[in-house]
Amino acid sequence: MAELDNGLMEAYGMLMERARELHILQSAVSIVHWDTETKMPPRGVALRSQQLALLQGIGHRMAKDPEIGRLIDRIQNHIGLDSLDEVQRRNIHLMRKDYDEATKLPEELVSETAKQRIVTIDTWKKAKAARDYGAFKPDLRKLFDLRRQAAEVLMEVKGTASPYDALIDIYEPGMTSDSISRVFSELRGGLTKIIEKCMSALQPNVSILERRVPVEAQRRVSEALAAFIGYDVASEEAGGRIDETEHPFTTGYYDDVRITTHYHENRFASSVFSVLHEGGHALYEQNLPRIWMYQPVGAACSSGLHESQSRFVENIVGRSREFWSYFLPELRRLAGTALSGVTVDGLVRAVNRVKPSRIRIEADEVTYGLHIIIRFELERDLFAGRLTVDELPQAWNERYLEYLGVEVRHDLEGVMQDTHWAGGSYGYFPSYALGNIYGCQILAMMEQDQPDWRDRVAAGSFEEVGRWLAEHVHRYGNLYDPADLIRVVTGEDLNIRPFLSYLDEKYSELYGY
Amino acid sequence: MAELDNGLMEAYGMLMERARELHILQSAVSIVHWDTETKMPPRGVALRSQQLALLQGIGHRMAKDPEIGRLIDRIQNHIGLDSLDEVQRRNIHLMRKDYDEATKLPEELVSETAKQRIVTIDTWKKAKAARDYGAFKPDLRKLFDLRRQAAEVLMEVKGTASPYDALIDIYEPGMTSDSISRVFSELRGGLTKIIEKCMSALQPNVSILERRVPVEAQRRVSEALAAFIGYDVASEEAGGRIDETEHPFTTGYYDDVRITTHYHENRFASSVFSVLHEGGHALYEQNLPRIWMYQPVGAACSSGLHESQSRFVENIVGRSREFWSYFLPELRRLAGTALSGVTVDGLVRAVNRVKPSRIRIEADEVTYGLHIIIRFELERDLFAGRLTVDELPQAWNERYLEYLGVEVRHDLEGVMQDTHWAGGSYGYFPSYALGNIYGCQILAMMEQDQPDWRDRVAAGSFEEVGRWLAEHVHRYGNLYDPADLIRVVTGEDLNIRPFLSYLDEKYSELYGY
Repeated sequence: MAELDNGLMEAYGMLMERARELHILQSAVSIVHWDTETKMPPRGVALRSQQLALLQGIGHRMAKDPEIGRLIDRIQNHIGLDSLDEVQRRNIHLMRKDYDEATKLPEELVSETAKQRIVTIDTWKKAKAARDYGAFKPDLRKLFDLRRQAAEVLMEVKGTASPYDALIDIYEPGMTSDSISRVFSELRGGLTKIIEKCMSALQPNVSILERRVPVEAQRRVSEALAAFIGYDVASEEAGGRIDETEHPFTTGYYDDVRITTHYHENRFASSVFSVLHEGGHALYEQNLPRIWMYQPVGAACSSGLHESQSRFVENIVGRSREFWSYFLPELRRLAGTALSGVTVDGLVRAVNRVKPSRIRIEADEVTYGLHIIIRFELERDLFAGRLTVDELPQAWNERYLEYLGVEVRHDLEGVMQDTHWAGGSYGYFPSYALGNIYGCQILAMMEQDQPDWRDRVAAGSFEEVGRWLAEHVHRYGNLYDPADLIRVVTGEDLNIRPFLSYLDEKYSELYGY
Repeated sequence: MAELDNGLMEAYGMLMERARELHILQSAVSIVHWDTETKMPPRGVALRSQQLALLQGIGHRMAKDPEIGRLIDRIQNHIGLDSLDEVQRRNIHLMRKDYDEATKLPEELVSETAKQRIVTIDTWKKAKAARDYGAFKPDLRKLFDLRRQAAEVLMEVKGTASPYDALIDIYEPGMTSDSISRVFSELRGGLTKIIEKCMSALQPNVSILERRVPVEAQRRVSEALAAFIGYDVASEEAGGRIDETEHPFTTGYYDDVRITTHYHENRFASSVFSVLHEGGHALYEQNLPRIWMYQPVGAACSSGLHESQSRFVENIVGRSREFWSYFLPELRRLAGTALSGVTVDGLVRAVNRVKPSRIRIEADEVTYGLHIIIRFELERDLFAGRLTVDELPQAWNERYLEYLGVEVRHDLEGVMQDTHWAGGSYGYFPSYALGNIYGCQILAMMEQDQPDWRDRVAAGSFEEVGRWLAEHVHRYGNLYDPADLIRVVTGEDLNIRPFLSYLDEKYSELYGY
C-alpha cells in the first residue's frame, strides 16, 4: 500500500509539474497578448503574430505530450483515485479533459481553424466597414463549418448530447443547450414584463451622461474606483494596472492581473462601468487560492461565473444608489466643474435607464439578457441545422423586432456587430446571461450573511462585499463545475428568480411603477 | 550535382527554419523582459521569474536540438559549402558557433551559473546598500569561478588563446585580450593628454544643466528627439516607443524596437542623451536588412559596433555645436521658461565638460575610456590569475588614482558601482571603448562622402547622416566579425587615431587650448 501510494504520488507530482509549466507558459502568453493590445508599436503586428503562433504551437505540443496521457492513465487505471483528496481528483479530472480536447482534435483541423479565425475576423472588419454581410458570409460559413467539425469530435470526447453542447461545455462545463433553452425562455418572459413596465413609466433624463469630462480626470476616477474595490494598482505591492484599449478586457494570473478601459470624453460613465466590470473579473483572479497556483483547480470556475463577478461589481454594486451616494461627491471632486448640479437621484436613474436598443454592448441590465437570448437561439438553430448562414441576418432582424421591438436598419448594427462569431467563439454567449443569474443567486446568499451590505457601500466601504465574494465564491477556484458551485455557494440549483426579483425591486423603485 | 544541390538547399532551408523559430522566441522573450522593466505590477515579480526561466529553458532546448548539429554537419561535411553564397555561409558559421556554445557547456554549469547570477546580483544590491564589499565578495568569487570554468570550455570550442579571450569573443567576435591591451595602452596615452589640456584651461559653467525642467516637458523633448533622428514612435506606422526605467535600455527586433529613458527634473540633459544614445541603438536594429529577418546574419555585428552607433548619435551628433544650434530653440520652446538665457555656446560647453570622476556612467566622452581601460585591465588580470577577488578593491582604487587622479572614498563609488561583474558579464566592458573608436573611424569615412553633414544637422536634418549609417554600417548586419566589418566600411584596420583626432579637434575648440 505504501509503495502504491508512493507511485501514485510520484505520478501525481509529475503530472502537476506538467500543469505548472502549462500555466506558466499561458500566463506569459497572456502578457504578450496584453502588450499587443496596449503597447505594441503598430509596425510590430506581423512579428507579433509569428511570436504568438510559435508560443501557441509550443503550448499545444506541451499540452499534447503523450507522457501526460500516460501519467493520467497510470493514476486513473493502475493506481486508482481513492487515495487522492477532492482537490487532487479534480486536478486529474481537469487535466484529463484538457488532454482529451488537445489530443482528439485532428492537427489539421486545429491549424486550419486557427488560420480561418484570422481570415474571418479580417473579413468581418472589412465587411463591417462596407456594411456588406455578403462579403462576410463565405468566411463566416467556412469558420462555422470548421467549428462544427470540431464540435462533432468534442461531442464524442465529452459525451454531450449534441455538437453545440460540446461547445457550450468549453465555457460553461456541464451546461446544455436544453437546460439553457428552458432557463432563457423563462427569463425572456420575466425581462419582457419589467421592460414593459419601465417603458410605460416616466423616463429618466440621461443628458448628464454626455457632460464632457476630460480624459485626464477620467484616469483619476479609474484609480479611485480601483482603490474603492480594493484592486491595487498604485502601491508598492500592486498586482494590477489599468491601461487603455478600444475594447476593455482583463488578463493575467494571480499576482499580475491587468485590466483595460476606454475613455470617451462625452461618455464618462462608459469607463466608470468598464473599470468596475473588469475590476470584478480581476478580483476573482487575484483571490484564487494561492496554494492552487499552477494547478488546474487554481482557475476561475467558468465564463459565466466570471461574468457573475464582473457584473456583481459593475451592476449590483456599481449601479446602486448606495454606491453613488458615496461616490458622486468623489467623482465631482475629480471631474472638476463638469458635473456640477448632478444629484445622486439623477445620476442613478440615468445610469440605470432601461431602453431596448440594437447594440448589445450598450444595453442596460434588463434588456441585455434579450440580446443574449437572441444570439443563443440563433447559434442553437445554426448547429441544429434549422438555420443557415445565409438566413442569419433575416432571422436576427426578425428576432430583434419580436423580442426587443427594435428595427435593425443594416447589418452593421445587426448580425455584424459582435466579434464572437467572426472569431469562432460559438457557445460563449449564454455565459453572459448566466452571469447575471448566478450573480443574483449569490447576492441573495450574501444578503443573508450581510443584511447591511448596502449601508457599508454607502459609507464608502466595499471591503465586506469583497471579502464575502472572496470567501464564498473565489476561494473555490475551479473545484466544481458551475452548477455544483452554485449549489455549494447558495444551496440551490440554477434559478432565475433571484435575478428577476432583484430587477423588479430595483426598477420598480427607480421608475416608480 | 543537381541532386546534391537539392539536398544542400533542403538541409539549409531546414536549418534556417530552426533559426527562424529561435529568433522569434528570443524576440518574444525580449518583450517579456521589457514588460518586467517597464509595466509589470510589483507583485508579479515571482511569477515573472518563473515565466522567464521556462521560456529560457524552452529556448535552450531548441538551441541544443541535435537535429541542428546534424543539419550543420550534413551541410559542412557531406555536401560542402561551395555552392552556398556568402550570406548562407555566414549563417552556417554563426549557427555552428551558437550550437557549439549551447551544447559544449555542461548542463549543470549552465544552470548553476544562472542561479548564481541571480544570487550575486541580489548580494551586490544589498552589499552596495551596506557599502560592504566583504559581504559581496563570496558570491562574486563563486560567480567568477563559474564563468572561468565556462571560459575554459569555450576556449576549447572557439580555439582562443586564453579563457578570457573566449569571453571577449562573445561580445566582440575575433577580438583578443592582447589586441585590446595594445589599443587601450595607446588610447590611454592619447586620452590623458587631452584631459590634461582640458583641465588646465578655463572650465565651463555647468549650472544650467541643473535648471528644473518638468518631466512632462522632458517627455515632449524625447518625442522631438526621436522625430529628429527618424526613430518613429508616433505615426500609424511607428516601430518604436519610449518608456521610463531606472536605467535606460533598448530592446526588440526589426519592426518592434523599444527604448527607455529616465527623467530627472534637475538634470534634463540626462534624458536628452539617453534618448539619443538608445535611439542610436534602435536605428541599427530597425535598419537591419529585411530579407535577413529571422536569420543569424540579420543581427547587429557586435556589442562594440552597437555602441559605436549609439555613441555616434549621442556624442558625435548629439553633443555637437551644430545639433544644438538647431535644437536649442526647440528645447527652449518645449521646456517653457526653464531654459531662458541659455545660449548654444554655453550649453555645448556644459554638455561637453571634461572632468575625471569616479562613476563611469556619469563620465564624459574623454574620460570615459579610462574607466573602461581600468575595468578591462582588472578583468584581464583576474582571469590571468595575477589578481584575486580579495585584492580587487585595492587594485581598483590604485588605478583610479593613477589613471584618473581621483580618490575612491568607498566601494560604492568604486568596485561595486557597476552591475556587470555581479551579473557575470566578464569580457563585455571593452566593447564600450571600442564603440568610440569604431564610431570615429566610421565618422572619418562619412566625412569623405558627406563633407557638409554638420551643416545639414545645423539645418535640422539628421536624414543624410541616418541614411549614410544605414547604407554603410547597418546594412551589413552580422555578415562580418567586427574587425572585418570595420575594414569593409573604412578600408582600414581598427585604429584609434580618428577617435583621438576627433576629440582633439572638438575639445581644443571647446576649451580654447
